[in-house]
Amino acid sequence: MVASIIDGKAVAQTIRQEIAAETAKLKAETGKVPGLAVVLVGSRPDSETYVRSKRKGCEEVGIRSFGSDLPEDVSEEELLKVVSDYNEDPDVHGILVQLPLPKHINEQRVLDAISLEKDVDGFHPSNIGRLAMRGREPLFVSCTPKGCLELLDRSGVQISGKRAVVVGRSNIVGMPAALLLQRRDATVSVVHSRTPNAQEICAQADIVIAAVGKAEMLTGDWIKPGAAVIDVGTNAVEDASKKRGYRYLALAPKGGRPESP
Amino acid sequence: MVASIIDGKAVAQTIRQEIAAETAKLKAETGKVPGLAVVLVGSRPDSETYVRSKRKGCEEVGIRSFGSDLPEDVSEEELLKVVSDYNEDPDVHGILVQLPLPKHINEQRVLDAISLEKDVDGFHPSNIGRLAMRGREPLFVSCTPKGCLELLDRSGVQISGKRAVVVGRSNIVGMPAALLLQRRDATVSVVHSRTPNAQEICAQADIVIAAVGKAEMLTGDWIKPGAAVIDVGTNAVEDASKKRGYRYLALAPKGGRPESP
Repeated sequence: MVASIIDGKAVAQTIRQEIAAETAKLKAETGKVPGLAVVLVGSRPDSETYVRSKRKGCEEVGIRSFGSDLPEDVSEEELLKVVSDYNEDPDVHGILVQLPLPKHINEQRVLDAISLEKDVDGFHPSNIGRLAMRGREPLFVSCTPKGCLELLDRSGVQISGKRAVVVGRSNIVGMPAALLLQRRDATVSVVHSRTPNAQEICAQADIVIAAVGKAEMLTGDWIKPGAAVIDVGTNAVEDASKKRGYRYLALAPKGGRPESP
Repeated sequence: MVASIIDGKAVAQTIRQEIAAETAKLKAETGKVPGLAVVLVGSRPDSETYVRSKRKGCEEVGIRSFGSDLPEDVSEEELLKVVSDYNEDPDVHGILVQLPLPKHINEQRVLDAISLEKDVDGFHPSNIGRLAMRGREPLFVSCTPKGCLELLDRSGVQISGKRAVVVGRSNIVGMPAALLLQRRDATVSVVHSRTPNAQEICAQADIVIAAVGKAEMLTGDWIKPGAAVIDVGTNAVEDASKKRGYRYLALAPKGGRPESP
């Protein structure tokens, strides 16, 4: 099966250039610089990696970065105070609290404390609700599902009238991805851990977005020839040949070499 | 094909008795009587019918009814004032604004003005968002989709692990019905006007909820034998034999007589 691979890195680079031009224009015309606050609690290696790349991304495109790195044992009240201060700060236009938070902190309470106008992750119930509703527009859409749609659009994949399957129903990726695809007039099915015939359903789809935390669940024979597939799961599998002892896997074509980003 | 018909009227009667017992108990124990305000604007015959049956329903089960019948040309500000007064009234625990509203009124603005704690229709974006999110609970769920799930549950239809198709993606029925089914671990597909192969998808479903404003779109050959089907569309078709000149249609079994509720 000959397949064309969506070059996510190239698309990301293009988008970064577009945003850099927009922020430069905004600054030239209004003097305003967009500001993003990224709040990190504790020192999970994956969270640190994400936060680092978010801050680096800001720097590249002319967004001013604000950061709070809080210790693992920070109290919920202290964290809420940090969020509240960013809510009040007119130089901060967006606030990201890196998830997951330590177990002693009520994640919902912290996310709900972010002002709706600065909820750039789009995790607030009101933003999710607007995403689900016809005739409404969310203020922000979660970045990963939004990125999936960008990849499809910029790869010339038609969405309207197509069958789309989203594998996974997380609040952060699967669920908003399904809502976004439905807004764009795809016929969407959501497959999850309780779906008995997931392969059969995936095989009917023109577009598959896989957002599951399980390596090699989908293989090439799950996918209809010509279908567009985006795997947003980063699944580390053990790999003794790598210095770090693992590698990240994307979809594994049947009988082929798994793509390693 | 032998099919058993879900007796919606019998289920409704049972639920009314349950609620009557609950309100009686509440009153005996706390002295409190639940209060529901139903706001009607104008005199659309269908809206008047719905509002009348809501008020009658309240009366039957011991819920205190509050009502505002406003003229067709009421201003948005006047309507918002009525909603605001009910928001403030401690005897009113739920507020329903009958839709559709006249064109000169911004429906979203009016619905958003209902306090979240009294939004018994569950139309507020924040309630819809909570319905979509795992680990969150909406304060209220729209009555029609909730009724669909009640009918399925009380008819012994298993939802978890089953394939469900919702036909229609309205904010009021289709979309929340899909979210409810997904919460219950069904694998849900939403079929709509832009779906090219709706019949094929419906025919795979164990559960079909049809919520479309188009009479006789689904016929018996769309449905897998043994599947549970709920039609929530009330579609009036011309019928000269009826005094009123039309009758309501539910699903039309192929070659059979359409069910007329």
